[in-house]
Formats: sequence, C-alpha cells, structure tokens
Amino acid sequence: MTKSNKTSPNRAKKLSDISQWDIETDIAIIGFGGSGACAAIEAHDAGSEAIIFELASASGGSTALSSAEIYMGGNGGTRVQQATGHHDNTEDMFNYMMAAAGPQADEAKVRAYCEGSLDHFNWLVDQGVPFKDSELKERAIMALTDDGLLYTGSEKAWPFNQLAKPCPRGHNLEVEGDNGGPLFMKIMTENVEKRGIRVEYETRALCLIADQDNQVHGIVIRINQQEINVKTSKGVILCAGGFVMNEEMLKKYAPRLLQCSGPIGNPGDTGSGIQMGMSVGGAAINMDEGFVSVPFYPPGSLTHGIFINAQGQRFINEDCYHGRVGWHCLQQKGDRLYIICGVEEYGDYEKVSYLGAQVAGTGETIEELEEELNLPTGQLKHTMEFYNQHAANGEDPLFHKTAEWCQPIEAPYVALDVTPGRGAFYPYFTLGGLDTLPSGEVLTPGGEIINGLYAAGRTACGVPRRAAGYNSGMSVGDATFSGRMAGKAAAAKA
Amino acid sequence: MTKSNKTSPNRAKKLSDISQWDIETDIAIIGFGGSGACAAIEAHDAGSEAIIFELASASGGSTALSSAEIYMGGNGGTRVQQATGHHDNTEDMFNYMMAAAGPQADEAKVRAYCEGSLDHFNWLVDQGVPFKDSELKERAIMALTDDGLLYTGSEKAWPFNQLAKPCPRGHNLEVEGDNGGPLFMKIMTENVEKRGIRVEYETRALCLIADQDNQVHGIVIRINQQEINVKTSKGVILCAGGFVMNEEMLKKYAPRLLQCSGPIGNPGDTGSGIQMGMSVGGAAINMDEGFVSVPFYPPGSLTHGIFINAQGQRFINEDCYHGRVGWHCLQQKGDRLYIICGVEEYGDYEKVSYLGAQVAGTGETIEELEEELNLPTGQLKHTMEFYNQHAANGEDPLFHKTAEWCQPIEAPYVALDVTPGRGAFYPYFTLGGLDTLPSGEVLTPGGEIINGLYAAGRTACGVPRRAAGYNSGMSVGDATFSGRMAGKAAAAKA
Repeated sequence: MTKSNKTSPNRAKKLSDISQWDIETDIAIIGFGGSGACAAIEAHDAGSEAIIFELASASGGSTALSSAEIYMGGNGGTRVQQATGHHDNTEDMFNYMMAAAGPQADEAKVRAYCEGSLDHFNWLVDQGVPFKDSELKERAIMALTDDGLLYTGSEKAWPFNQLAKPCPRGHNLEVEGDNGGPLFMKIMTENVEKRGIRVEYETRALCLIADQDNQVHGIVIRINQQEINVKTSKGVILCAGGFVMNEEMLKKYAPRLLQCSGPIGNPGDTGSGIQMGMSVGGAAINMDEGFVSVPFYPPGSLTHGIFINAQGQRFINEDCYHGRVGWHCLQQKGDRLYIICGVEEYGDYEKVSYLGAQVAGTGETIEELEEELNLPTGQLKHTMEFYNQHAANGEDPLFHKTAEWCQPIEAPYVALDVTPGRGAFYPYFTLGGLDTLPSGEVLTPGGEIINGLYAAGRTACGVPRRAAGYNSGMSVGDATFSGRMAGKAAAAKA
Repeated sequence: MTKSNKTSPNRAKKLSDISQWDIETDIAIIGFGGSGACAAIEAHDAGSEAIIFELASASGGSTALSSAEIYMGGNGGTRVQQATGHHDNTEDMFNYMMAAAGPQADEAKVRAYCEGSLDHFNWLVDQGVPFKDSELKERAIMALTDDGLLYTGSEKAWPFNQLAKPCPRGHNLEVEGDNGGPLFMKIMTENVEKRGIRVEYETRALCLIADQDNQVHGIVIRINQQEINVKTSKGVILCAGGFVMNEEMLKKYAPRLLQCSGPIGNPGDTGSGIQMGMSVGGAAINMDEGFVSVPFYPPGSLTHGIFINAQGQRFINEDCYHGRVGWHCLQQKGDRLYIICGVEEYGDYEKVSYLGAQVAGTGETIEELEEELNLPTGQLKHTMEFYNQHAANGEDPLFHKTAEWCQPIEAPYVALDVTPGRGAFYPYFTLGGLDTLPSGEVLTPGGEIINGLYAAGRTACGVPRRAAGYNSGMSVGDATFSGRMAGKAAAAKA
C-alpha cells in the first residue's frame, strides 16, 4: 500500500512475519475502563489467563469520567427497583430500548441485554458495587445524592410512554455528589487486582496480528518504546473506547457531531480499537450516530418552559431526556434557538445549571420578548398563547408533554439562548463501532465472525444507537455488560 | 472464519491460491453503466486494454433507468449555459456543491469535479451526446422536452441563494420525453463498441484477488457457471452501483431509508462492489445517507402551496428541490403530513403528477379543512393566516421562500396526504460507498491507498452526499466524471 496524506493506520501485522513471541496468554484485553475491567474479571473467573493493556498510567477510561449510572431492570425488577415499589417487566424494558435505539436497533443485542439485566445487577453487587434502596424523584441529569434509582431517560415522555410502561432504570452508586465513575472504577480495579490479573499500564496497542484468513492470533504492544508481540490462544478483546477524540474520523464518519461543543471521553478515545478491527475486515456500523445533548436541567423547573426555533415554533415535548431534546435542537433550521420560561421557573438556573446558556431577552409581555428576540412578529405570541391555553388543562396537543409538566408560562418572561455555537454546552460522544454479536465476536460486512477478535464498550456498536433515544446509564450499562459477555465468550473458546 | 447466519461475503481470494490465470488484461471494469462505460473509454484512449464485465445481458445499469440529467457548469459556462445567457463561475458552482454536500462534503472531490466540469461537458459532446442550446424555464422534476438546460436543484432557494449566485446546471439530452438515460447509454455503448473494447455480459464478479498486503491483482468472475481468474496488471475498477437493492445492508447501514417506498436502481445494486472493496480493507463512508424525495412537482403550481406537519406547522421553503423537501418530510414528528393549496394551484395534479398522494380533505374555509384533517384546532388557521399575510407582499419571514413562489393561498382549499406509508411516492437510493481519492483510488480507514483498486459511480462515495442537498444530475454527473477519472488513473499506472 501507498501512504496518502492521511492518518496512520493500525494495519494488522502478518502472522507469518512474527519471528518471536514476547508474551503468551489466553486473552489480551485492550483498555482498562469499564468494559475492559468486566471482560478481565469474567475471563479470569472462567479459568482463562487475561492480561489488560492500558494506554494511561491508571485504570478508568471514560467510565471513570462518567457518573456511572447503569441502566438495568426488567425480570420483575432489581433489588433497588423492588424496594422502591417498581415492578419492571422485561418486555417493557425491551420495548423501550428497541424504540430508543430506533430503526438501527440490534434486536438480538437488546434482547440479551434486557434478559440478562437482573443478573448483571446482581453480579455488580457481588463485586461490591453499592446501590442504596432509595429513589431520587426529581428530574435530574444525574443523582447528586446517594439514592440508588432514578429516571434517566424518556420513559415517561411521549411517544415512549405509549409503547412501554415507564419504570426508572438508572441505577446510581451509593455515593454523594457526581462521584459514581471514580468509585465504580476503584471497585472494579480492586476486583481485578485481588484476582491477580496482570495489568500493563502506559502501553499502546499498535496493531493486531492476523493470518492470511484474517484470524487474529495476537497483538503488537508498545511498552517502554519497545514493540512486544503478544500471542493470544483465545482472543483479543478490544475495549479501547470510541473515536470522539479523533477529529479526522469525526469529519469522515460523523460530521454532524462537530456542530456540538464538548467532546465527552478520555484522550484515548481515538478510534484505534475500531480501526484495528477494520484492519482485519471487521465492519464498522452506525458510525454517523452519537450522543448529543443540551443539558437544560437542573433546574428541573425549566421543563415547564418551551423550546422554540428561529420560526418561533415549538418542536419537542420538553419533558424528554436532555439528549433527545438536544438532538432535535440540532435538526432545526435557522440561526436561533431559545428556551422560554417564566421568571419563576428560571428559578435558581444561574446557581445549579450546567448549560452555560446566556439570557437572550426578557419581557413583561410576549410582544416585548418577541421584539427583543427579533422573532417574526406574531409567531411567538401564537405559540405561547396556544401552549398556555392547553397547558392550563394539563394538555399539549402538539407534542404530548405530560400533564405533570404542563402549566401556563407566566410573565415576566425569560429567554435563554441555546443556539449551537453561542455558548450553550452541547456535549457529544460517538455511538458507532465494530459490528458484533451479543457475544462480542466481531463481524465482517458480510456477517462472518472474525475468529479470535472481540470488541466491547464503545469500540463496538452496542445497545444505545442514537441521541434521539439515549438514556444516561446506557453507555456504562452497555460497556460493562458487553465486556462481561466478551470475556466469557473468549474464555469459553476451545 | 466461521459463518454466522448472515449474507455470504465477497471475501477476497488469496493471490497465493491462484494456480492459473484464465484472462489477462490491464484493467478489469466491473459494471457497464455510466461510470463503467466512461472508465473503459478513458482507459482505452490512454492506451490500456480494458475489459468490462457486466452482470446483465446488456449495458445500461442505473444510468439507463435514469433521466440522465448531468450536473455541469462553472468555468464561465458550458456551451449550452453560454448560449442561454448564463455565465457560470466555478466558485459559485463549488460553493453551491459544498453547501449541498453538507458537513460531510469531500472538498478535494468537489473541487476536481467543478474545475473539470466544462471539460467533462466537451468530452461528452465529443462522444456524441447531444445537448440543445435551449433552456426549459418551468419548475420540473425532469425535462420532458428536448431542451438542453434546466434548474435541477435548490440553487435559487434559501439558504443556497445566499451562498452562491444561482445558475442552472442540469444538462438534459436532446430527446423528447423521459428518454435521456436509454439514449445516453446507447451512445456510450456505441463508443465502447467502436473502440473494440471487450465486453463480457451475463458475468458475475465474485471476489477480488489480493496478496497478503491487500494489493489487488485481479478478480474472480463467473461466466457460464465457470469461475474465471482475471489477472489485471493495472487495476480493477468497481463500477457496480450502490446497495439500494440489498435490504440487509440497508437495515445495517441506512435504516432510515427504509421509511421510503420506492428503491431506485437496477437489480444489480446489491452492494457487492462496496463489499468487495471492504474485503481488501477499503473504507465505506457516508453509508447512512441516501437520496430521498417526495416528487410533488409537476405541477409546478403546487410550489405555491405549503407543506405542514402533524402540528399544523410549516417546516420548509417549498421552492426547494423535491429531494430536500422529502428529506425534511421524513424528519417531522407525528403521524401526518400534508400539502395545502388552493384548488387553482391543485390544477392538473391528477393528470401530470408522479406523487401518488391522495386528497385528504377539502374546505371552503380553513376551519373546515382543519377540522376535516383533524389537526389541533387553531394551528392550521394561524399557519395559513401568517403565511398569506406575508405572501401577499412576496415574503416568507419563516423559511424565505422566494417571492416568485409567494402568493396567498385562496379558497377552496385542497390537502394532499404526503404522510410516508400512506400512498405518496418516496423514492430513494444510497449515497454511501467506498472512500476514494478524486482519482478513484480506494482508501483504507487509515487513509492508505489500496494498490490496484479503483471505484467509481455509486460504488464510491462521490460528490453528492445527502438528500438535503441533492440535485438531479449529480449522480449521472458524478458517475460519468468519476468513471473517467478512474479509467485515466488506472491507465496511467506504470
């Protein structure tokens, strides 16, 4: 091959070119975040030798940077769900997650995730992950309390509430503040260490080692500036994150995400795992999709407000999850997007918000606000009068916001500027990756399994597939669950 | 590799496994549509031997099924543009095409296309493709006259008219009726035949032949139920179309297109060319995107109407290209979409339309229509009153429809049901494919060139990248231009 003027590849090394093996093991795991930790523990507990290679000098990955909410339920309910009075049917969880994933849903993967979800909860508890039997009832982007359960998605919002009985499934670790991620990875790291699983830090995975049939036999790792050939008898599990930190890949595969402002992930999310998988014929799918959001709550009271576009039209039921709202914001035409609310609902926005949106206008009357925002005369007035008239009856004939959040917006009014590029925070990360079976086995575009190669977490394309149906807790849920499945599947290999 | 329960792949055959070559040539071209024909002619004229392998029993591909409008201009204007009074700047064409392609635009490819466009026109004329020096001025989905030039996109519509000086660039063959495609392929086939270029019909390309470094050395073809090994000294050019006829690939890569009703293409558009390219490490990009449309004109008079969603809101300037309008239709929430117009603009809809949409309601007053359509009371009334008030002044403050198409909608009213899935025609085809340089050389995900492999037409990801900015003429334009570039580049290989 000839090099063009683009990024360097992670092209596989030929097995026939390997003259010496420096390390031999059953399973090599690339990445020590949530998925890598779970893969290693399961592989070890099934009697295989696993080694974790981690780029950073400590475990953590993007899981440690997250709130580590974990989306779990079904099967009658987890211990926390049951203790807080929620009976959760597997079919409700399945139907919700399928609708959330949209037309690109992977039914087999969603099915396995839902049916295995109670077992996953119990497994995590067995590892020592603490969940308190209490529910946080306020609308929150994350629990800053130590409560064990909260709604973290659009379960109660239209159209999802028409498709499945709502149930809270966001499980939050028993820790105060936004400290779930570090605690979770501390516990999982201890679990890895106490099993004596070998971990090599500050090591970079360079490329897979494959034979002429693209079967994977190992991986080349750089440790201390030396290239080390690692032979794997059972498989390589790629748990190396997504590609949100690789701008070239974003431009090529997910250009729409570049409208957002805040990449969420760790510096290792360069897509190298995905590229390694592709280098041996693995299919990368759903590559255009990502999580995006406009985190407009807290304060939850802003949910009583309305989002309007440059045409002065509403476009979403505001009681949806912030990711779904953010995705719809990015679909709007025109150069302006606002949240309109009463000063009472604006409340303690300045103190508690993560949004970073500035006040664009205020008004004692709608006309005054409309003029200050320079909206087409009469549009905002109609939108708000129509909204208020029906909200007074707890109704939203246009977007079916639930009665709980419907109340007339009253003067004085405030408008927050949530136009992308004008200060409001639009976080994002990627949701595309290697196409895998529920077992983590990587597939070619033709649907063949690549022997010896597994992917989990955001290196794979998992159960969450789009911002329009995302929930907090689906990524750490998927990463840990898919990591376990891959660890078990690789260990079970003859 | 182990077979999963999915489609069979086009996995490459190993060069070392080839014991006998049945055919040897400089260049093998897979597919005899517009791109394959142009690739063969250029390769031959540059002194190389090329053989075309075509699945069907005749040339044509999807080009022959199309209207064969060809998007060309810039460089001061083609002969037809100049004769009809249009001076066309390359930068206007470039800026328009970049905006049309959106954030995923390939700047190098758009640049090459625009700068080479006048030369491309002259080359086609040299092959005998007839263009009359006349312009069709009505708003048409295609020219049913023999006029040589028409607007085939959104050049005159907002926001494109803010970014580049509009100019018509859709070149239509000098033939009456919708017969451009067959005539174009007849002419190109004659050009192939008169050069004595060898063509093998009823042959199926099975897989590429590649060495351990994924360099391509030939291709396996099935002729008369026999597998034939074709050795290529300069390269294989994949001109095998897109994947609109492969439902499994659509589900995996472009699930949103499945909301549409009419796949546009030929039965060979199974994605086999794209899969062959991926089998030797080629990157497939933009795979989620396709052309979609709601072909609501003719009659052009419906452009005086408005599109409304289930909320009774407008959402697009209706003077955009039908593909852009169709794409926005698919983004709407709710279960209903209508075109509202006056009975006068409805005109001869039933006689001349391709749309297939049924009349959903009529009314002497807006209130009557709103009730008949069961829209939220007051929404349609506001939307139409606001629209009419400004249209009377030739203005559209919401979506900037141009004055030419702004006039109040007058009773009696008609509503056409354009809800996807309720009868209206939503044609679609794919716009994702192999990542290539402007030369047609196929790239890996890491940006390396795969030696010996080229792709053109819809097997490659070309200049048109999304429905929201599509123009008629961009596909045949891109197919023929990219076919020529690939033929030239392969022939120039040492």
